[in-house]
Amino acid sequence: MSHYNKIAGKRLHRIESLSDGVFAIAMTIQIFNLKDPVTKIFENELDFLYAIKPILPTLLTYFLSFITLGIFWTGHTTQFNYIKKYDRNINWISLFFLLFVSLLPFTTGFLGNHINNKISVFIYWFNVFALGALLYTHWFYARKHNLLDIDKHDIVPIDLAIRKRIITAQSLYAFGSLLCFINDYLSIIFIIMIQTNYAFAFFQRKHRV
Amino acid sequence: MSHYNKIAGKRLHRIESLSDGVFAIAMTIQIFNLKDPVTKIFENELDFLYAIKPILPTLLTYFLSFITLGIFWTGHTTQFNYIKKYDRNINWISLFFLLFVSLLPFTTGFLGNHINNKISVFIYWFNVFALGALLYTHWFYARKHNLLDIDKHDIVPIDLAIRKRIITAQSLYAFGSLLCFINDYLSIIFIIMIQTNYAFAFFQRKHRV
Amino acid sequence: MSHYNKIAGKRLHRIESLSDGVFAIAMTIQIFNLKDPVTKIFENELDFLYAIKPILPTLLTYFLSFITLGIFWTGHTTQFNYIKKYDRNINWISLFFLLFVSLLPFTTGFLGNHINNKISVFIYWFNVFALGALLYTHWFYARKHNLLDIDKHDIVPIDLAIRKRIITAQSLYAFGSLLCFINDYLSIIFIIMIQTNYAFAFFQRKHRV
Amino acid sequence: MSHYNKIAGKRLHRIESLSDGVFAIAMTIQIFNLKDPVTKIFENELDFLYAIKPILPTLLTYFLSFITLGIFWTGHTTQFNYIKKYDRNINWISLFFLLFVSLLPFTTGFLGNHINNKISVFIYWFNVFALGALLYTHWFYARKHNLLDIDKHDIVPIDLAIRKRIITAQSLYAFGSLLCFINDYLSIIFIIMIQTNYAFAFFQRKHRV
Repeated sequence: MSHYNKIAGKRLHRIESLSDGVFAIAMTIQIFNLKDPVTKIFENELDFLYAIKPILPTLLTYFLSFITLGIFWTGHTTQFNYIKKYDRNINWISLFFLLFVSLLPFTTGFLGNHINNKISVFIYWFNVFALGALLYTHWFYARKHNLLDIDKHDIVPIDLAIRKRIITAQSLYAFGSLLCFINDYLSIIFIIMIQTNYAFAFFQRKHRV
Repeated sequence: MSHYNKIAGKRLHRIESLSDGVFAIAMTIQIFNLKDPVTKIFENELDFLYAIKPILPTLLTYFLSFITLGIFWTGHTTQFNYIKKYDRNINWISLFFLLFVSLLPFTTGFLGNHINNKISVFIYWFNVFALGALLYTHWFYARKHNLLDIDKHDIVPIDLAIRKRIITAQSLYAFGSLLCFINDYLSIIFIIMIQTNYAFAFFQRKHRV
Repeated sequence: MSHYNKIAGKRLHRIESLSDGVFAIAMTIQIFNLKDPVTKIFENELDFLYAIKPILPTLLTYFLSFITLGIFWTGHTTQFNYIKKYDRNINWISLFFLLFVSLLPFTTGFLGNHINNKISVFIYWFNVFALGALLYTHWFYARKHNLLDIDKHDIVPIDLAIRKRIITAQSLYAFGSLLCFINDYLSIIFIIMIQTNYAFAFFQRKHRV
Repeated sequence: MSHYNKIAGKRLHRIESLSDGVFAIAMTIQIFNLKDPVTKIFENELDFLYAIKPILPTLLTYFLSFITLGIFWTGHTTQFNYIKKYDRNINWISLFFLLFVSLLPFTTGFLGNHINNKISVFIYWFNVFALGALLYTHWFYARKHNLLDIDKHDIVPIDLAIRKRIITAQSLYAFGSLLCFINDYLSIIFIIMIQTNYAFAFFQRKHRV
């Protein structure tokens, strides 16, 4: 007798398509919070500039959230270069990954609202940590259950590169979050620097494929 | 003469793509209701923790809604492993399925707001029931009208697995909902337990493909 | 020299993917307007039922809007069974079609809010008319500029079926809208009946492919 | 040792799918701001027409924003006719392109709210400029790093057509924005005329492929 769990969750291109939908929404959701703060008419352009200043923190939060989502979208996407089969368990790992993806704009905004508070740093860190842990599990499960399709001599370096990347990034995030016991701003600036570097790859090594 | 209804609704990959869009929105829509509840600045971290407590019910509702959607997304997706043709009738079965998908975040939130009320349990149950009934009809129609592409000796176990899954799940939901005549909380806890089990598959049998 | 307009807008699968995104949003956007109307705690279940009554018009409007969108999604999708090439002009016909798709939830809601008003009927009718006109143009342009891929002996009946369908539907909508000069409710009920019939195909002829 | 950056960001069809999601949201997001302005019941149809007048600026802004997004969606999409490989750098160029895509509805709305103000013209122009600059970089990077797949004798005219298009459009936008030092309305009308022309191609040369 065929068990439902043996046939469920195998449609890999559907999880990719669902992920793009959830990421697209998470990446744009904060735009709904961008409200025009100017309600008066200003003759003077400088007064006007001053009146739109309240929008800057929302924009900065939006930027930080977008970059973080971009990093995790790229990480999740990259694994699908090699993952060629899917089953119900890895299907649910991806779904829970998407659950934390959709929470990120909120936790990032919460951090922006309460920048002098260790609990908001902790909540933000926990969200980023959950994303990293699920991404790691996603890869680990795929490798352990033979869901990958990689040339035999490529598997070790690729496996190492993907796992090392997640562990390095998560260590830096954890260290950055712990910095809040010294100073909250220091902690946040450090986290922003990590993410900006992952996006712009300032320090990437200079060999290309 | 060719009738329009004979040529309409055949683009199976489009219904898959539309479904992913609707599910992605339904899965994230409740994040719009997550509002930062803290408006004061707290010196004390414990006071701050207490101030963010009002967000917990929304988070819990979000979690429940996400898991339910994940279960039905996986169920709908799994059928497309075998459904290889589409026509206008099954096209509309899927569209009405998506109608109830997009209602689920609301009915789940409504249940969360009125947890001591039989009517909110009934509305929630009806939504889950409609999803199950349409999913069953989707499969039943596809099998009856030869829209499947399965090896001859696989068709019976697969057909059984898919139908049994929906009927078992729906019986459990119905039983859980009826529990509200004993106690509303008992009813909701039972439903959450069913769904958590379908997501995490704690009790899945130990054979793999 | 190659002109940009000769190379633009050819990625047919992208317009299909963008359409699914826009339709998915338009189909779910009214859920944002579904607010829990119950703010008190009721002991009596009947009082509770009465308190949720204000949600019914929004639900009905949502249902009407969803069915209309489903009809036009199916119509647009069906044409892509035969349209196999794309160019910049037809690309923009589809984009403007999507513009009116995204307006439909608003014009349907507007009709629901002002049910005793000829102008709201006219605005709603114009939106549905624009969708039909653009859908017709989409097909007409594709046929005229050899963007179709149909067997020679199939082209006449398919062309006829697609065009006849749009013209019949639009005639019925126009007639239904004009009924508002007799009675507004008659007009709306007639329009809902047309759309329900297109969704459920009660009167479809009984031959299958 | 394999570096993560060498294997990341290669899934070209995923960036296309994510782009369609972000564009679909950006194209429809302003519909959320379309609120029914009529709260009274009018006996007189003319009074009713007058009462819905406040919705016109939002509709106009929506239209402008939609056309601009359509132009850039077509531009980004067209490049993928020829870009057949992807790497992490071009992946991030696309992600930042999408960041500015999702900001466009806000900056367009902001322009509509403050039509007599040079700063709102500047913010809007900067958004359009960033989109153009990133689109140009996207193409330039792809050509420089051999990510294209074009017939040898086609590469020069196609490269020229794509680059010329972006530079011409951006020069016209910059000129239009500078017109605000003469008159703000002149500036906006000029920009709307450019975009309408790109959408409807009134002045396109009369050769077809």
